[in-house]
Amino acid sequence: MSERQLFIRACWREEVERTPVWLMRQAGRYMRAYQRIRERHSFLEMCKNPRIAAEVTLQPVERLGVDAAILFSDILVLVEAMGMRLEFHEGLGPRLSEPVRTPEGVHRLRVPDAERDLHYVMEAIKLARKKLRGRVPLIGFSGAPFTLASYVIEGRSSRSFRFTKEMMFSQPEAFCALMEKLTTAVIDYVNAQVDAGVQALQIFDSWAGCLAPQDYEQYVLPHMRRLFSEIEARGEVPVIHFANQAGTFLDKVRLAGGDVIGVDWRIPLDEAWRRVGYEVGIQGNLDPLALFAPLHEIERRVRDVLDRAASRPGHIFNLGHGVHKDTPEEKVVALVKMVKRLSAR
Amino acid sequence: MSERQLFIRACWREEVERTPVWLMRQAGRYMRAYQRIRERHSFLEMCKNPRIAAEVTLQPVERLGVDAAILFSDILVLVEAMGMRLEFHEGLGPRLSEPVRTPEGVHRLRVPDAERDLHYVMEAIKLARKKLRGRVPLIGFSGAPFTLASYVIEGRSSRSFRFTKEMMFSQPEAFCALMEKLTTAVIDYVNAQVDAGVQALQIFDSWAGCLAPQDYEQYVLPHMRRLFSEIEARGEVPVIHFANQAGTFLDKVRLAGGDVIGVDWRIPLDEAWRRVGYEVGIQGNLDPLALFAPLHEIERRVRDVLDRAASRPGHIFNLGHGVHKDTPEEKVVALVKMVKRLSAR
Repeated sequence: MSERQLFIRACWREEVERTPVWLMRQAGRYMRAYQRIRERHSFLEMCKNPRIAAEVTLQPVERLGVDAAILFSDILVLVEAMGMRLEFHEGLGPRLSEPVRTPEGVHRLRVPDAERDLHYVMEAIKLARKKLRGRVPLIGFSGAPFTLASYVIEGRSSRSFRFTKEMMFSQPEAFCALMEKLTTAVIDYVNAQVDAGVQALQIFDSWAGCLAPQDYEQYVLPHMRRLFSEIEARGEVPVIHFANQAGTFLDKVRLAGGDVIGVDWRIPLDEAWRRVGYEVGIQGNLDPLALFAPLHEIERRVRDVLDRAASRPGHIFNLGHGVHKDTPEEKVVALVKMVKRLSAR
Repeated sequence: MSERQLFIRACWREEVERTPVWLMRQAGRYMRAYQRIRERHSFLEMCKNPRIAAEVTLQPVERLGVDAAILFSDILVLVEAMGMRLEFHEGLGPRLSEPVRTPEGVHRLRVPDAERDLHYVMEAIKLARKKLRGRVPLIGFSGAPFTLASYVIEGRSSRSFRFTKEMMFSQPEAFCALMEKLTTAVIDYVNAQVDAGVQALQIFDSWAGCLAPQDYEQYVLPHMRRLFSEIEARGEVPVIHFANQAGTFLDKVRLAGGDVIGVDWRIPLDEAWRRVGYEVGIQGNLDPLALFAPLHEIERRVRDVLDRAASRPGHIFNLGHGVHKDTPEEKVVALVKMVKRLSAR
């Protein structure tokens, strides 16, 4: 079988000749080719211009030789399409105007028609597929409902999730209505992405780890089960479920669904895989900051991750979080080479 | 035995008639009496004025009826005494001038003479003990070496710990020298606090959870073992070891030391206690944001924590992190009453 299918085969836990590798935020500010485009366009312009988004999507394929491309976009464009105003401020991260904290606010959000309202995403997917010419598969993605809910409620990223949890705990019906609406929107969005041509999906639950396991189970898990069961019912593409900082309740993350569970670096890969069970694949989990180490130290850590995966079918090498913007580009190039070399069977 | 010893007896895992309770950041902005003082003084002025620090230390004892007072101070005053300039900016958190990122920078830091250089802390302890008149014990505290190191290196709080990890991974000798110096400083500091009159200690490792378990073991654990073994050699007061977000490597936290292990809410209390073993006490672990819920919901959650502790000797009720500044004061008062009522044997 050809190398270009390596990533997809690993998602389905088939035997592969080496471990496939891609990196969260592999298209990003650490890369000079990206910076050259970013100098002339705002981040949101780049997301919304299909030609630019497709070009940036391909940069890491060309520069790094990763085994999958992931669409260049942002999880919050979906929320914008639901009726909120989205802005990115340099160094401050995203801002959403008029955070939603009442039943009326939830009611006003609309479930977008992804094909129409996020047309530029679908265009970018089609263009990226064309430019990839089958070299490697294209991954589409969405934020998970809880992570999106936290932005919708806080209006920005948060450390304490003060308003999110206040709504969850004191207005559980309104919170649940918001989660249902977001879940429906995410399902429609990722289905449209599959129609447009993505060959795998990743669901990012970046903030799930702020919750007690009991609260995840009660307020999040039912919606996640619906999300994954509806995606899996189509069954066309493998789905990666990345729940950040959820190392203490991976059993529940697994229950939610996904063909591959993505884990951060706060838990050793072998322990994480044992906890979720070998009936799913595992993705991860080098600390992105390890890329600030000397090469021999990076290699030691890559070997450690690969040793813990023990050549078991279903491992996809990745970082435990996105590439940090200050990472030396050469180290990222070296990392991908290392994984390919060290994992060859 | 008198109620005033309840907390200390629980730290030593003796049988008690009900579960003792205190709250991290129980003296703080959520409380009106605190705000009245804060209006007239900066945060750092409050820490450095022994009369004010002692007064604020006692506020939660009087308002909430908690079973222990904790000295009002900040973990960063120790770092200031080592030669860095410390400032607090409204809404931005602490700033340390000239972050330390080189061997020379580490060399320039001095191990303070805590009795002399942190005289105001010792004065505040003596005053607080006097004002407490034996009603409840007084807890002293320090940041753990890694948490202090992260501030020293970043110069502020961080999400990615980019500079901390870069130094750890690429200048391991300099990082180790910094950890050694900080460990020595912390040992001297908490010993001086015991001499001044504190009856228990808590070591806050607020940022340990940013590390992979393997890195905690290699770069942090040896220093923590020295810290706890030197404190325990004196053996006068019980020591609580709170490692925030370390739910995936509690076994290693336990190896570091402490008579009581403090845990956040990301792991159920029963599971955490099972992992650290019943030869140590456990402190925690209600999500501080649960205090934004209605009273009946807070009660359900308090019962859940107590049920998981199962009246086993050695449980100290606390939040899994500090009280959030926006918390309704009345809810905090109600929480302490609830714990006392629901845990009565």
